[in-house]
Amino acid sequence: MVTISVLEPHKLAIDQREVHPPSKGEIAIQVMKAGICGSDMHILHGSNPFVNYPRIIGHEFAGVVTALGGGVSGLAVGDHVVADPVISCGHCHPCRIGRSNVCANLQVIGVHRDGGFRSIAVVPQENAVRISPSLGFDVAALAEPLAVAANVLWRTGCTADDTVLIYGAGTVGITVLQVAKMRGARCLIADIDEKRLDRAMEFGADAVINSKLKSVAEAVAGEMDGLGPSVVIDGAGIPALLDEACRIAGPAGRIGLLGFSAAPCNVSQQEIVRKELTLVGSRLNRRFIPEVVEWLEAGKLKPSNMITQTFGAKDARAAFNLIEQNPEKTLKVQLAFDA
Amino acid sequence: MVTISVLEPHKLAIDQREVHPPSKGEIAIQVMKAGICGSDMHILHGSNPFVNYPRIIGHEFAGVVTALGGGVSGLAVGDHVVADPVISCGHCHPCRIGRSNVCANLQVIGVHRDGGFRSIAVVPQENAVRISPSLGFDVAALAEPLAVAANVLWRTGCTADDTVLIYGAGTVGITVLQVAKMRGARCLIADIDEKRLDRAMEFGADAVINSKLKSVAEAVAGEMDGLGPSVVIDGAGIPALLDEACRIAGPAGRIGLLGFSAAPCNVSQQEIVRKELTLVGSRLNRRFIPEVVEWLEAGKLKPSNMITQTFGAKDARAAFNLIEQNPEKTLKVQLAFDA
Repeated sequence: MVTISVLEPHKLAIDQREVHPPSKGEIAIQVMKAGICGSDMHILHGSNPFVNYPRIIGHEFAGVVTALGGGVSGLAVGDHVVADPVISCGHCHPCRIGRSNVCANLQVIGVHRDGGFRSIAVVPQENAVRISPSLGFDVAALAEPLAVAANVLWRTGCTADDTVLIYGAGTVGITVLQVAKMRGARCLIADIDEKRLDRAMEFGADAVINSKLKSVAEAVAGEMDGLGPSVVIDGAGIPALLDEACRIAGPAGRIGLLGFSAAPCNVSQQEIVRKELTLVGSRLNRRFIPEVVEWLEAGKLKPSNMITQTFGAKDARAAFNLIEQNPEKTLKVQLAFDA
Repeated sequence: MVTISVLEPHKLAIDQREVHPPSKGEIAIQVMKAGICGSDMHILHGSNPFVNYPRIIGHEFAGVVTALGGGVSGLAVGDHVVADPVISCGHCHPCRIGRSNVCANLQVIGVHRDGGFRSIAVVPQENAVRISPSLGFDVAALAEPLAVAANVLWRTGCTADDTVLIYGAGTVGITVLQVAKMRGARCLIADIDEKRLDRAMEFGADAVINSKLKSVAEAVAGEMDGLGPSVVIDGAGIPALLDEACRIAGPAGRIGLLGFSAAPCNVSQQEIVRKELTLVGSRLNRRFIPEVVEWLEAGKLKPSNMITQTFGAKDARAAFNLIEQNPEKTLKVQLAFDA
């Protein structure tokens, strides 16, 4: 089978390897489509703090069940599935309170163990979510990034009463936008790139702010009767934005963070206390993929226009190069293992 | 009547003034006992960012209803009451979502309008909570600081499953300790003063940490099966503690902030996201006083030992001086207007 792995930082390998059969409790998936995530790029560049090498990367993938390990029930060969990359122990304190994505023994497929950038991926049966055969594998492979958006909007308690300011109209920002619009919230999105902002309008943004040309704080000051946005999501992962987010957010506002920068952020305790702000971290997703699949199957989310390019798996290097060299031309690049 | 006011920063006045009758919707309270809060000291020193001068201070007070303004119902002359200092508009977005303490038109009794350090205080009827005549006015006047503790523990979602680390064994720390113990949580408290830590043990702390002698991080590392405390409360209001709190808290941990320092705090986005921490500001209280009064009346909270000194209102200057010069000798100093 074709495998795409990172042997060590900056060393991508595209190999032919043997297929291993699934062990007890595991299933084998013939991967059809798999998306490349910013965190895959971080693994390639040695800037993902959690990975160990060598690693077959990829954690956004959908395909067909080809084999069942011992004791697997509820899934059959031929089922169409999408993977949830979060493997949790089920018995630690975070797991017991429903926060499996910060499990004390967390394993992430494509990070801590081999992922989905291979023709046949083997995963625990709990990590396969069945999808309707009528759902395209390309759209199904978007369920994981959409679940990341669902997670941060759950963490920030986003409802139809909210005005959400999203920093960054990249992949994270656009997925957050779609889920927040589905929830009925008013959505504003800020970015420095006019083309990305145009795309945000196509995905339903109520207003866009070119933060190169004007102050985000001024642009959103009139929201919520002049109180400011009730939810702010940092979809750009820039530590310096946190201080501005605290100043911009209205009373009782919630601020969602998804970035992994180790650089210190400045925040003002006074702003947080005066307005009773809530700052939340959001990592991966807390078993939101089944719900996202329902939204996709019901047509509540229509993310297919996010897929800007698809490369054959053997051409993965060209896909990575495109993301590196022309990031503005890409929103979601997928690899086709079915080609 | 006797009034205690701050004319301008550093200028305390103890005067005799005329009593004004309550206006429509207001009641007059003959103040019996009133507690001095750290924020009263900040008003005196010009370091409260919200006050305007001159101001009759005091927001922790209990007494007897002596007169009703027009249209007041549900209260009668002779009723024993404790005041809730939070005046909210009821129609802004924060009010509509139950966050009246960060009302867009917030007024705090004793900060934005005249407070309870006077023989007869006039307050809106909504700000008087009836208490049983069997509850001492001294204990009733502790309802407000206990409601502040109830608020931060509500904000952090504290339950019996939690291990709570409290920074600071001063008034805030000791009220948080009592409410968290009532909720069944395991409570650890850190301070640099051995006598304050002894007092924390008397109020039910499960363990105390002298942070002058040992690392708080090391002392709490074994909690929650080695994951670290699930709740951290900054009862000391020291910005530098936030970074440590983020490092110490376990996965899915919640960190409660109550301080008003304008100094920037450093936090690590990576710690917040990796562990999905939740950082919350907590200001005043969100209508917790009726519930706190129930706890006091039912004997679920027994805070009377918090009252370390009581001064006659006319000796208020001596009370303020004691708090200034010998803070370690005080936990809650009250003024008696009934003397």
